[in-house]
Amino acid sequence: MYRTHTCGELRLSHTDKNVVLSGWISKQRDKGFVVWIDLRDRYGITQLVFDEERTSTDLLENTRKLGRETVIQVKGKVIERASKNPNLPTGDIEVLVTELTVLNEALLPPFTIEDETDGGEELRMQYRYLDIRRNPVKNNLIFRHKVTMEVRKYLSDQGFIEVETPYLIKSTPEGARDFLVPSRMNEGQFYALPQSPQTFKQLLMVGGMDKYFQIVKCFRDEDLRADRQPEFTQIDCEMAFVEQEDVLNAFEGLTKHLLKEIKGVEIESFPRMTFDDAMKRYGNDKPDIRFGMEFGELNQVAQHKDFNVFNSAELVVGLSVPGGNAFTRKEIDNLIDWVKRPQVGAKGMVYCRCNDDGSYKSSVDKFYDQDDLAHWAKVTGAETGDLILVLSGETNTTRSQLSALRMELAERLGLRKPDEFAPLWVVDFPLLELDGETGHYHAMHHPFTSPKPGQLELLDQDPGAVRANAYDLVLNGNEIGGGSIRIHDKETQAIMFKHLGFTQEEAKAQFGFLMDAFQYGAPPHGGIAFGLDRLVAILGGQETIRDFIAFPKNNSGRDVMIDAPATIDAAQLEELHLKLDLE
Amino acid sequence: MYRTHTCGELRLSHTDKNVVLSGWISKQRDKGFVVWIDLRDRYGITQLVFDEERTSTDLLENTRKLGRETVIQVKGKVIERASKNPNLPTGDIEVLVTELTVLNEALLPPFTIEDETDGGEELRMQYRYLDIRRNPVKNNLIFRHKVTMEVRKYLSDQGFIEVETPYLIKSTPEGARDFLVPSRMNEGQFYALPQSPQTFKQLLMVGGMDKYFQIVKCFRDEDLRADRQPEFTQIDCEMAFVEQEDVLNAFEGLTKHLLKEIKGVEIESFPRMTFDDAMKRYGNDKPDIRFGMEFGELNQVAQHKDFNVFNSAELVVGLSVPGGNAFTRKEIDNLIDWVKRPQVGAKGMVYCRCNDDGSYKSSVDKFYDQDDLAHWAKVTGAETGDLILVLSGETNTTRSQLSALRMELAERLGLRKPDEFAPLWVVDFPLLELDGETGHYHAMHHPFTSPKPGQLELLDQDPGAVRANAYDLVLNGNEIGGGSIRIHDKETQAIMFKHLGFTQEEAKAQFGFLMDAFQYGAPPHGGIAFGLDRLVAILGGQETIRDFIAFPKNNSGRDVMIDAPATIDAAQLEELHLKLDLE
Repeated sequence: MYRTHTCGELRLSHTDKNVVLSGWISKQRDKGFVVWIDLRDRYGITQLVFDEERTSTDLLENTRKLGRETVIQVKGKVIERASKNPNLPTGDIEVLVTELTVLNEALLPPFTIEDETDGGEELRMQYRYLDIRRNPVKNNLIFRHKVTMEVRKYLSDQGFIEVETPYLIKSTPEGARDFLVPSRMNEGQFYALPQSPQTFKQLLMVGGMDKYFQIVKCFRDEDLRADRQPEFTQIDCEMAFVEQEDVLNAFEGLTKHLLKEIKGVEIESFPRMTFDDAMKRYGNDKPDIRFGMEFGELNQVAQHKDFNVFNSAELVVGLSVPGGNAFTRKEIDNLIDWVKRPQVGAKGMVYCRCNDDGSYKSSVDKFYDQDDLAHWAKVTGAETGDLILVLSGETNTTRSQLSALRMELAERLGLRKPDEFAPLWVVDFPLLELDGETGHYHAMHHPFTSPKPGQLELLDQDPGAVRANAYDLVLNGNEIGGGSIRIHDKETQAIMFKHLGFTQEEAKAQFGFLMDAFQYGAPPHGGIAFGLDRLVAILGGQETIRDFIAFPKNNSGRDVMIDAPATIDAAQLEELHLKLDLE
Repeated sequence: MYRTHTCGELRLSHTDKNVVLSGWISKQRDKGFVVWIDLRDRYGITQLVFDEERTSTDLLENTRKLGRETVIQVKGKVIERASKNPNLPTGDIEVLVTELTVLNEALLPPFTIEDETDGGEELRMQYRYLDIRRNPVKNNLIFRHKVTMEVRKYLSDQGFIEVETPYLIKSTPEGARDFLVPSRMNEGQFYALPQSPQTFKQLLMVGGMDKYFQIVKCFRDEDLRADRQPEFTQIDCEMAFVEQEDVLNAFEGLTKHLLKEIKGVEIESFPRMTFDDAMKRYGNDKPDIRFGMEFGELNQVAQHKDFNVFNSAELVVGLSVPGGNAFTRKEIDNLIDWVKRPQVGAKGMVYCRCNDDGSYKSSVDKFYDQDDLAHWAKVTGAETGDLILVLSGETNTTRSQLSALRMELAERLGLRKPDEFAPLWVVDFPLLELDGETGHYHAMHHPFTSPKPGQLELLDQDPGAVRANAYDLVLNGNEIGGGSIRIHDKETQAIMFKHLGFTQEEAKAQFGFLMDAFQYGAPPHGGIAFGLDRLVAILGGQETIRDFIAFPKNNSGRDVMIDAPATIDAAQLEELHLKLDLE
């Protein structure tokens, strides 16, 4: 037996007990006549003591030679510490070691195994197995486990059944790119890895499973933006015989449960906002509502003077920065430069100080008088001491720019508090979205989303105006879940495919099984999928999903630890009936 | 709202309540003046009633037209049934319908949605979504969910952390064949889908996670034997600072918990048997010990006479069939024919009846006298009324043949009772296994398994004799789990790779990251993996894993429902830098 106790377990009540511990040497302090070792395992740290009086000379000498991260087993007696460490759960005791066995040697690690390490991201990823020894990473993984256990417990208690759907499925070139898997047994044919179990969960509803969930890996072969992973995990859910209201209630229940059990935060009920409202008030379909700075549309109160920049703009929109009048001129200029960066793309920004004496001072005083500016303040909700910032231009672009500014300001003002949680349902999404490049409409959510009742007819006249039974759950400015009520009849599904540019043949080849299934008694159904990686990160008070994934890939989709992907044998290629076609 | 109650919920206490139900029309009986419908959902069946007295003529007439599996919503009042059905939980009541809405039409299903269906396997797989509506399939999936929830609950309570390991990893051509995934972003390179998370769970141990588990999909591109799937699910587990005894105890605990919680069966402690013993006593490394018929080796008591068949055999081995003397001559001949089938391959079989008067009557009376046969009876444990069956030949072959016969006899005699559970640990497996075709040794478990202490030296002289710290958990004649204590130092791992025919370069290219990790303080560790599909099937009293998988593939690795794998677009191939190389 390697141990009688873990390194996080011993207390004063264990005094005089003979114990066996195993773990890693975390630190060693040598005072000459006495040597202390911090022995570490997953559960904590226990101080080991060796001294000239009570330890054999051999043991003391050998101990001195042991390097950091050496794996050792020690036998000894628990004794009370002379100087206790109140910051350590085991800080009242130490173990006087009588016997030490080296279980495995260790090279000097390439970075320090400390909460604050000296290792950069790339080095830590290459030696991820050492990185995981660090408390922040280890605790994130344990935290993730805790969240998934609570998710499963809650959903199972609510009658949801976890059903495993297949990973080797069929490619559907529409939407994001699939990862493909050549089939050796079926020459010239390929499986695809699922981007989500969407069609399978719908088939489970047709199959009468009624309430389904699955925590499941999904795959998208996309050019990776920051903090995206080619493989990611979803909490995938579906219910039969439900309307939107039923789904929102069910998963508001799940999210409340998680916030309460994991974070101790109780929230009565989640606010709801239409997509249109969210865009108007926050310029964003996933607004962070932990803080204000709502948009005020200024067209009516800013387009009546000779300021052509505003007059020629589709939208003039501003927000009020609380306490922003305290900003120096330099700070304001810096903000103007910030919105003019290519990543944001504004041409300029107008500002207006709300002075303590009730007067206004703007960068466009040439055009607007105190009365005009008072109107701006009213519309943006600015009060004395605040700062109004105004952008103008094409509606969507300008909203998006002001939204970026709003988030940046919140960051700078410390308004995005990681221990505060502000969930929000965004509902009534558009069914279709215009692709600027191709000029075609594609499904905003996915092709199985149902339009709002009575709006099917609108598809021909004004496709962009059709609203869907689609909803997102937003938490602290991040979309953590999204779903919809699905189409459940073959005719509507066929109309949708047609409007998405599928020929009948294509629709049949790719989704024939689903259309067939709809003919055999498909119940009304809908669902939602949560992005587990992000949900866990946000619950953990962070936003980088990579920190909550044991073995993440880098932005080129590489696992730098195992060095994958890699070349394969010629024989393997041949068995798959493939040849490389390199440029 | 589509329903106030489910179809499995209403009882006499709900009498006079107005309710709304939704579901599928399971059956319809029309007596002219009254029509009954069995309305079905996941939770049960509720009888709906429509009659001339209390139902509007329109509703009654419309109801008559509805076909099986139509999805309907009804409103009505709960009333007490005149003739109750004690076999149905809702059998005391029926719902007098006042309003009926057709939610979706249904074509006539291609097979009956009944516990005993008229649909063959292939048809049911093609319309799996309809098959899942049938109770046996639906209940199997719910049962599987229940088992996985218990597994997670138990392991989590024991301090195990579920960590997700990556699905896009690196190919290791050794062992079974990998499924490969071409990388678009890394031209000419491929990921592989994991055959198991073996190396990652070992790295988690190096990373100090201490106790890991994961219920995880694994992939093997093998030519499919009956009841194998290209993707299958493992309960994958690993522990640090453990010896074999610790691992066996931990997972005996899990298995006991499952047997108790799921089946109500309590088992004190699981018997253990060495691999050598299992082969000797049952001719099989996964013996079904729900019944006896242990082997008796007869060389000493059968090779002293002039019967050359026995005298020239490496092994003469028999078993006693309890009550087998009741077999007719025809039944015995049938058994002899059975062992001579090419699938078993015996040349012949000797038998000996143990008559009620204490005398023996054998098929080789010419050679053996009553005294000889009494010895046979003693060695095989036969008593009056039993039948001794004897095979002979090369040791391994003969054991395997007699083992097949033993299982067949148990099947015929009804000794393989699905509600009886006989777990068994088989331990001390050989480290290496001789590949008959190539003449090379390969790892019996996998290349990371550690040899028994002190046996590393034997590797050079007698590789086949080296025993490993490897163990299988056997349940009712099926291997449900297997694992080992791993190698945790670079030198031993290098020796193993060398003996498995890896060059140093190959070992480094494929497993360099693991060997590196071993240098940075790897703790002693070991683990186990359970085959979830089979475990669930056996706990469910069945042996076909396909019945416990929502969307299984057929023996060609095809999903006949979605028709995958399939051809892909030329553009997709091109993006992956590949060309087809068809024969």
